[in-house]
Amino acid sequence: MTDQITAPARTSRRSRRAKGAEPRSGAPGQNPHLEVPFITRGVPTYDLLSDESLQKIEDAADRILAEIGIEFREDPEAVRLFKAAGATVTEISAEAWNLKFEPGLIRSLLQTAPARFTQHARNPANSVDIGGDAMVFAPAYGSPFVMDLDKGRRYGTIQDFENFVKLGQSSPWLHHSGGTICEPTDIAVNKRHLDMVYAHMRYSDRAFLGSITAPERAEDSIEMCRILFGSDFVNDNCVIMGNFNTTSPLVMDGVTTQGIRAYAAAGQASIHLPFLLGGAVAPLTMAGAVAQCLAESMVSCALTQLVRPGAPTVLGSFLSSMSLRSGSPTFGTSEPALGSLVMGQLARRLQLPLRCAGNFSTSKLPDAQAMQQAMMSMMSAVQCGANFVLHSAGFLDGLLSMSYEKFMLDSDLCGALHAYLKGLEVSDETLGIDALAEKGPGEHLFGTAHTLRHYKTAYYDSALNDDQPFETWDEQGGVDMATRANTRWKDTLAQYEAPAMDAGTDDALRDFIDRKKASMQDAWY
Amino acid sequence: MTDQITAPARTSRRSRRAKGAEPRSGAPGQNPHLEVPFITRGVPTYDLLSDESLQKIEDAADRILAEIGIEFREDPEAVRLFKAAGATVTEISAEAWNLKFEPGLIRSLLQTAPARFTQHARNPANSVDIGGDAMVFAPAYGSPFVMDLDKGRRYGTIQDFENFVKLGQSSPWLHHSGGTICEPTDIAVNKRHLDMVYAHMRYSDRAFLGSITAPERAEDSIEMCRILFGSDFVNDNCVIMGNFNTTSPLVMDGVTTQGIRAYAAAGQASIHLPFLLGGAVAPLTMAGAVAQCLAESMVSCALTQLVRPGAPTVLGSFLSSMSLRSGSPTFGTSEPALGSLVMGQLARRLQLPLRCAGNFSTSKLPDAQAMQQAMMSMMSAVQCGANFVLHSAGFLDGLLSMSYEKFMLDSDLCGALHAYLKGLEVSDETLGIDALAEKGPGEHLFGTAHTLRHYKTAYYDSALNDDQPFETWDEQGGVDMATRANTRWKDTLAQYEAPAMDAGTDDALRDFIDRKKASMQDAWY
Repeated sequence: MTDQITAPARTSRRSRRAKGAEPRSGAPGQNPHLEVPFITRGVPTYDLLSDESLQKIEDAADRILAEIGIEFREDPEAVRLFKAAGATVTEISAEAWNLKFEPGLIRSLLQTAPARFTQHARNPANSVDIGGDAMVFAPAYGSPFVMDLDKGRRYGTIQDFENFVKLGQSSPWLHHSGGTICEPTDIAVNKRHLDMVYAHMRYSDRAFLGSITAPERAEDSIEMCRILFGSDFVNDNCVIMGNFNTTSPLVMDGVTTQGIRAYAAAGQASIHLPFLLGGAVAPLTMAGAVAQCLAESMVSCALTQLVRPGAPTVLGSFLSSMSLRSGSPTFGTSEPALGSLVMGQLARRLQLPLRCAGNFSTSKLPDAQAMQQAMMSMMSAVQCGANFVLHSAGFLDGLLSMSYEKFMLDSDLCGALHAYLKGLEVSDETLGIDALAEKGPGEHLFGTAHTLRHYKTAYYDSALNDDQPFETWDEQGGVDMATRANTRWKDTLAQYEAPAMDAGTDDALRDFIDRKKASMQDAWY
Repeated sequence: MTDQITAPARTSRRSRRAKGAEPRSGAPGQNPHLEVPFITRGVPTYDLLSDESLQKIEDAADRILAEIGIEFREDPEAVRLFKAAGATVTEISAEAWNLKFEPGLIRSLLQTAPARFTQHARNPANSVDIGGDAMVFAPAYGSPFVMDLDKGRRYGTIQDFENFVKLGQSSPWLHHSGGTICEPTDIAVNKRHLDMVYAHMRYSDRAFLGSITAPERAEDSIEMCRILFGSDFVNDNCVIMGNFNTTSPLVMDGVTTQGIRAYAAAGQASIHLPFLLGGAVAPLTMAGAVAQCLAESMVSCALTQLVRPGAPTVLGSFLSSMSLRSGSPTFGTSEPALGSLVMGQLARRLQLPLRCAGNFSTSKLPDAQAMQQAMMSMMSAVQCGANFVLHSAGFLDGLLSMSYEKFMLDSDLCGALHAYLKGLEVSDETLGIDALAEKGPGEHLFGTAHTLRHYKTAYYDSALNDDQPFETWDEQGGVDMATRANTRWKDTLAQYEAPAMDAGTDDALRDFIDRKKASMQDAWY
């Protein structure tokens, strides 16, 4: 049975979208020429620092690892692996060890990690490459709350989770279904991973992230992939990723390292992310935060190579600042944007794929603040050469809330970024001297042959911006962008159609979930 | 008398701001360590294209000038100057001539133009450099309408104009008072330039732009500078700039060229800006629009050097896209942002200062669309190395409206960009290994010596973002950023104090204006 499932009928993105109720022609936001399963960057990276400065940061990361070390907790096997590879281990307690690494040791362990890999989707047309000049946009991850303009903020539910999977699947500008798009708080903590993974598998046909909150939940996520893709395919290919946080500063806890080992052992990919709030768990000065980020993420990535050399692993960067008045974390600010640009340079020197930044904001509404901050952060991802951009859609409230409207705003922005990332083509055709020569000085170009050849593809057509004259906009109600986004997410959900899934596969997945749920009491931690 | 005025008592920005009602410490938006009279760029430019592609664009610009030519209208003197310099002139009518230029001719004429110059302000502490790695932010320019959340959109008045001069002067993040911040439509067209120039002189002590709508209004603007700065000072220094638009595609009208000649003859600076709406007055494809922009702006700049070699002149770039559905111009989109990056590269190859981009938007409200578009455009200015960024604050409604709230949002963003443009310093102090070493793994850094040394200057502190926890924000009214901006512009105007001006100078300026106004009937065109 599973053999059939590993090779589903290839459904192109266009034919899938063509099933929607909206006609392509004339409707806003239709840009078929820009649709791709993932972006291939056509603009150069924006390199902030000189090689000399980058070397200083790398040297600082090496000093952190050699002189201060990383504390490992409650996972003797991880400690054993690093000790065998040459780490100096000092026991702090029965459950905690300080590991120090000679300069260059971690870097040498990372040499077996691939610079680029493919994460397969159940619809092969939606498989994504991660690394090199490939770039993948995925929804935000991890908010306990959801919000919309109608009902405000409340705890997320599995219904919200499924809604966001459907909204993501409906957008041509996201490439990946993400992971814990919001916490489905109406389901027990020890069981909700099953419903989340199922929702990604059933309501999307894109690649997705699995659970990492406990080793057995990581294993369940991978086991469900074996049902969907077939065990052999899973053993030989990356079909799922886990997104792991270090416990900054400089700690790796056992739940995390056991989860990392589970993904790596199965040959699946993992992302290794220090969550660095400057001044709280990292130096306030950005050079120091970047050095720490590099040190922590490199060690976390290296664990995968000790478990299974060649396992796909992704360097992570999540830099945040702090309000100097309140001590609150701040997102989408200038200094972390600069730090992200540097992390891009460092990842390329390491030849590892990078997860970095996203549409960050601390705003509590999908307002001017939300998109100003989102842009500051997102442009750094786009320009630093990030390969996997989690938090590309929906992020508000300092990551505490997933916003329905912001999801639509961000998705539309991701479309605009497809146009940006194509770059600027210089050729006789795009230089278009014939366009100016046809009618000469003082004459408009509306009807020239050059204009007629290019008007359908010259510019990204936003689904949510209002570019009409003031009077037209006013007559149509004079609403703001958030209000338009509110209408659009409801329309999108109303028009959503689930991608086809083989009934036998669906039954097998549900059966697995039912058996797992029946095997344990609900737990809420 | 004027000698005294050319050297006003030096008032530092800090002492001026210290007079305001708001205490510096603890109040939002206070970042004294970032305040400068103009920015010196500490980040590299973001170079999009290879030298080979840039050469192709330059070759295309040369072909436009050699094969299609520029049409000059109603200014035989400009035609005579170019003919004497080697242009091929073909008479089209009694008032219109087509001028063609051999490749390299215009470029050679530009060799006398300075790569960088100082525009003097009446407060010498506020003089700005334009060119090289200097960057100057100025308010938006040219809107007939103004808008705010209370009263919506209406025609601008001199009261609005003065308000915006005061708001600009009150912001540490703008460096220049701008020009026609909004049209004061309650004053006759042939007289309003006098009130606008006076408002800049009286309510700001920064550099500003003069009138360009008629040659005699340009002369009046310069004459008022002679009263303010002294004739000798004006003859030897740049104290005013004119902002001139070509009549795209490929036309220079006589009012414009006469105005350009007036500023150049007085040794004053001028900006030369093709206003290029792709598909309407320029090719839809961005490479072609950039080539045209370069061709038009170079010719316009070259006229200044024929009038007075060495006169400061600024290359201009204003690239816009179009809604493919409605034909409306669109601002703040991806493709023109890429074009701006390329214009930065071309300006550096020409060794001319560049005016480019700004906080553009087609939104009719200070909403998510407004700041998403503004950021797309403004980041291109920041990253392309633009030297003079007109439209840095207030731009909404596709430049038809100057928004009080957007002005505050943009000004605050300009502050964040001061932090961005400082770049990321890498030193032992900023690498801060001591911060991590002080308490070691697993311990927060709030109280470390490193944190205490840096917490006041590590991050830009926004005056308008709300970074508080959701509950606090909600208890305080749960308002959006536009609402906060509405409160803030009113507070700022209430707290505004005009910079001191010598009474004799003020009288002389008023007397000049009164005599000018009495000398002519009102005209409304």
